[in-house]
Order: sequence, then C-alpha cells, then structure tokens
Amino acid sequence: MFTKSTYPIEYLKDFVTKVFIHLGLNEEDASLASDVLGASDLRGIESHGVARLHTYFDMLKTGRINPTPKIKIIRESATTATIDGDNGLGLIVGPKSNKIAMEKAIKFGTGWVSVSNTNHFGIAGYYVLEALKLNLIGWAMTNSTKLVTPLWGKERMLGTNPISIAFPGKEEPPIVIDMATCTAAYGKIEMAKRNNDQIPKGWAIDSNGSETEDPNKMVDGGALLPLGSNRERGGHKGYCLAVMVDVLSCVLSGANWGPFAPPFALQQEIPKRSVGKGIGHFFGAMKIDAFIEVDEFKSQIDDYVRTFRSTNPQSGTNGPLIPGDPEREAEEFRLKNGIPLIESVITELRDISNQTGIPFD
Amino acid sequence: MFTKSTYPIEYLKDFVTKVFIHLGLNEEDASLASDVLGASDLRGIESHGVARLHTYFDMLKTGRINPTPKIKIIRESATTATIDGDNGLGLIVGPKSNKIAMEKAIKFGTGWVSVSNTNHFGIAGYYVLEALKLNLIGWAMTNSTKLVTPLWGKERMLGTNPISIAFPGKEEPPIVIDMATCTAAYGKIEMAKRNNDQIPKGWAIDSNGSETEDPNKMVDGGALLPLGSNRERGGHKGYCLAVMVDVLSCVLSGANWGPFAPPFALQQEIPKRSVGKGIGHFFGAMKIDAFIEVDEFKSQIDDYVRTFRSTNPQSGTNGPLIPGDPEREAEEFRLKNGIPLIESVITELRDISNQTGIPFD
Repeated sequence: MFTKSTYPIEYLKDFVTKVFIHLGLNEEDASLASDVLGASDLRGIESHGVARLHTYFDMLKTGRINPTPKIKIIRESATTATIDGDNGLGLIVGPKSNKIAMEKAIKFGTGWVSVSNTNHFGIAGYYVLEALKLNLIGWAMTNSTKLVTPLWGKERMLGTNPISIAFPGKEEPPIVIDMATCTAAYGKIEMAKRNNDQIPKGWAIDSNGSETEDPNKMVDGGALLPLGSNRERGGHKGYCLAVMVDVLSCVLSGANWGPFAPPFALQQEIPKRSVGKGIGHFFGAMKIDAFIEVDEFKSQIDDYVRTFRSTNPQSGTNGPLIPGDPEREAEEFRLKNGIPLIESVITELRDISNQTGIPFD
Repeated sequence: MFTKSTYPIEYLKDFVTKVFIHLGLNEEDASLASDVLGASDLRGIESHGVARLHTYFDMLKTGRINPTPKIKIIRESATTATIDGDNGLGLIVGPKSNKIAMEKAIKFGTGWVSVSNTNHFGIAGYYVLEALKLNLIGWAMTNSTKLVTPLWGKERMLGTNPISIAFPGKEEPPIVIDMATCTAAYGKIEMAKRNNDQIPKGWAIDSNGSETEDPNKMVDGGALLPLGSNRERGGHKGYCLAVMVDVLSCVLSGANWGPFAPPFALQQEIPKRSVGKGIGHFFGAMKIDAFIEVDEFKSQIDDYVRTFRSTNPQSGTNGPLIPGDPEREAEEFRLKNGIPLIESVITELRDISNQTGIPFD
C-alpha cells in the first residue's frame, strides 16, 4: 500500500490527463502531456514532474499558453524541419517535433528539427528515450527562462539549457545522458533555501556577482554559475555549451534566445525585448545502421558499459556510474512503490482539484 | 622583424610541408596537414601546433602512421558516412572526412560522418572554421589517448575528447566553440610541472585517486578530472560529455573507445586490448538555410554577440567574452607578428632539420 504522500504513477497520470482536458486540450494531447510529466516523476527528476502542474495550469487558464496549438512546419528539407509550435505546451509540441525528427531519420538516415514558439518541454531525457525505442540515437536540447550568468558576467543571461543524448545497449541498459549546462539545478537552490541550508561554493553568485553560499542571495537577484563555475575550473566551457544549446534551439528556429526567453511561470517578469517567438527546442535523431550494424553497435555499448563499470573506484565511492543509472533505478523503484510527493506539491494538486472538481485524494 | 624565437607562419608551414613530403606524403596532403597544424599555432593553441611535429615525425618514420592512406567510405546514406582512415595522419583524414560531411550538407541539408582508423587531428576548431566558409554550421569531435578519469574513478579511462561547433555572424565575428571536456588541458599540467608550479584544485587526481595540486603526481599515474571536477560541482556532467564524444566518434565508426585509444606518441604504452581501429572522429555539418534564411540567422547572431558583450561584468573582469574571441585575437596578432616558439619546441624542429636535411633557422 502507498503511504499518504506516495501515489501510484497511473493515479497521478490519470489526474494530470483530466486536468489538461479540463483546460481545453484534446484527449490525445492531454494523455501525451501527462506521459511526459509522468516520465519525469518516474525517473526521480521531481522538479520537472507534477510539481510543475500548477504552473502549467495557471499558464493555460490565463491564456498564456495555447491549449489547442496548430503545430506547423515552416521550412523543411529531407532531413531538417523548422517548426512553429503555435505557443502550445512544450509537453505537446516537444513530442510531436521529436517524432518528425525520428521519422526523417528512419527515411533518410538522420533528422534534425529546430522549434520556436513553444514552452517548457519537461525532461530532455524523455525525448531520447523515445528515440531508443526505434533504435535511433536521439538528441534533445532546449533553452529556458534565464537563470545562469555567462562566465565573468553578474546577471542572468542564459537558461539551464540541457543536453540529452542516448545510446542503446544489447544486454546492458542504454547510456542515457541528460544534463543541464549549469553547475547545479535551480531546484537544489530552492531546496537549500527551504531547509535553511548553505549551498556549496561554485554553484551561484549573488546580485553583486560574488560567489555565495547563501541560497537566498542567489534567489534574490543572483544567478547560477555555468558548469565549471569559474575560469580556473573551466566555467567558460559550461558557458559555451549553454550558448550552443541556445543557438541550435532558438536562433536556428526563430525563438527567443538568452535573456529574452519568456517566463516559465505567471509571476515571473516578462523580458523587455522579444527577439523571436516563445522558447526553442532542438531535436536530432540518427539511425544507427546508417553508420554501423545495429547489433555490432549494441554489443560495443555493452562492452563499453561493462568496461566503465569496472573502472578502479575512487576511495569512498562504488566507482563510476553509467549515465542514466540513477534515473533507471528510480524508475524501477517508483513503478513498484509509487511516486513520493512532498506536502507542498500535494497542496498544489489539491488546489487544482478544488478549482476543477477533478478528485485528488 | 621577428625575434629569434618568433617565426612567420608561412615559414613554419613551409617547413612542416617539406617535412611531411620527406616522410612520404604527397604534396597536396603535406600542404593540407601543414595548414591544420598552422591553424593551431595561429590561433594560440600552441600545444596542438608545430610543438607536435616531432611526435608525428616519429610515428610516420617508424611506420606507426601510414603516410599514404587510402581513405574509404565503408557505409553511406544520403546524409551519413562511416569512414576508414587507413591509419593515416588525422591531419589528412580529418579534413577529408569533414569535407564529405560538408558536401552532404550542401546537397541534403545536413551531413554526419563518423571516422575510424585515424590518428590525432589537430584542433577541432579547424574543422568548424572550414564549415563556416560555406555558410554551414560545423561540428567536430574526436576521442584521444586516455588521460581523464570518469567521476568516482581513479584511473585514466577517457581522452580529453573535445567538442567544437561554430555559428557565423554577419558584421560580428562568428561564435566558435572549441573545448575539451575535461577541466584543464594536459598542456597546462605540463607547463606547471616545467615551472615547478602547483596546479589548482579540481584539475587532477594522483595515482591514489586523491585530488592533487602537484602536477608531478598527475603525470606519474594520476589522471585529469572531467569538467566539473567533483560530484558537488557537476563532474558527472563532464564525464557524460566525454562519453558522448567517445561513442559518436568511436562506437559509431568502429574505432577504439575509452581506455583502448592507441597512444599518440611512440613512448606511450600500447593498450592491452583493442576494440576497433585507431582512434575516431565525428563531424557534422548543417546548412543554415535548411532551417532559416541565412541573412536572418546571421543578423540574429550579431544581436546575440552584442547582447552578450553588454552583459553586466563581474567585478575584476571586462565582462563575458564571446566563444572564439581569444583565438581570433591571437590569430590577428600572430599573422602580423609571427608565432612565438619556446626553446624546447625549436630544439625539436632543429632535430628534425638535422635528421632530414630540411633547413630550419
């Protein structure tokens, strides 16, 4: 049985689907969006799952996000497409754009899709896992609302701009990379703030541009630091990666890049200038057998995974993980034992329940 | 006039071309290889330029690298190719493979090439600059001889595995990203060792797996740390990026990945196991107008560059750079003022001169 704060994934997904239908999405889209959110909670990335439902709810309810987008291909070649998401939920525009990339890959070897006029798309990992099901190497990137300073800056100019890519194994589980290009997730800052904890050096600066260990000082006008933190430790590299994601997702598609990405939530400030439409995503898909026999590739990935698992471990650790291990283990556990939700998230879901009349226990 | 230790780029390139011809390369290949090495010295990445000529010289002279490779496409689709470099110099195999990616992009929108049986290819930035000349967004990656530990490991398992990508501007210079996926370059460790300096925390571990500030302890059986250094600062992300480069360059092409990458230089240990042929590269090219009007893209990049240059600067800095700024400034300066070479590199070039009879002053 589930404790009071733990819910079966199907229960949560059913609630989310009903909420999205209530907000005007058709059944198919509502179920798709619920799948994407659910994948996040299953894989233990709690910040991107139902914890975000109230924000989507607010944005849809106030008309800031379009519940019935007409997604359009505005430019196309055999292996590329540029998509206008018609200001739909990223949870809908993302999977549909990713599907176009995958279809192109199956036909022409590779497919590459840049998307504008969209909104936050959940976890990047969702998209590359979809590609894995078709023996494709999937890529997914997105920009997001500004939180990160470029190296040597002292203001928020970039999103946490994640990169995701996955490679299938044969007997071993796949290698699944899904990483923000900043040092630490904003969710970790929020958690430290809630718990009155300090944050480690290298995560954030305050509004004066000085490194801070006080999460409140990051939240109040400070910024996250790019992966690498400072010049000495390669902070310019994290900044470069964030720029790469930004250009592929936004400049290539005609979306708002850098500090001009529109806000994720109602209460966030709207940027003074707009340089495009919505935020942007970038999806890629590569057919493995366009390069090498699928079986040979997968056998080599098995060897790769086993080789890296047997790396001599650093003292105090069990040795290197394979990218994707923690999320896969979370998924196995949570499928069986349910999704643990913290009290504040449950309160938000109950509020949605009260506003919509959709039951939530 | 040039001081004793400063040489005009054309003088160095002419010497390099003659040396490669002496070693059995045809004139065209020798000149191409010299261009790639020269680009490195011009752009201020001294570790990858003529400082490496003696190593290439040794490897060619002893037959460890093939001076007359027959580069073969072993699998191909409209937008992809898998290439066997026939154990040629990476400085030859790299540009020729990159050209195939670019030709496919011009015809079909994008081109993606994975290369096995090759050797170190100089700076990754060279390849994406070639793509820029054709209004293409170029990607280049390569694995390299093991130097880097995965997070929570204590041994060398991965190369410094760089990622490079570039985006053209209209009036502004291009954004050129070229970064190793470890925290600090091995060349910086070598320099600290030579100068009896300490290295910063976060760069390296010793042979026991403990973080060290002594460059000698990294060199003697230690390892470089991935970008992010440790778990708290996101070292798992640098490790993920190195794996991504490794799989795209090697598993996809049939090259030696991870700890099995063959040595770069004669005196390095040969791995006990081989899982493929040579090292591997990965090249991509994307036609901008497959996604968006070239002029619109370039105007947006101009806006991007200007916006990021006007970021509020962190105290003690002049504010964020644009990726590629330092290398472009080095190139402008060095074209005019020559390439400064340190004494040990000059000694190596003189040794080659003595062995070949090709004059070097």
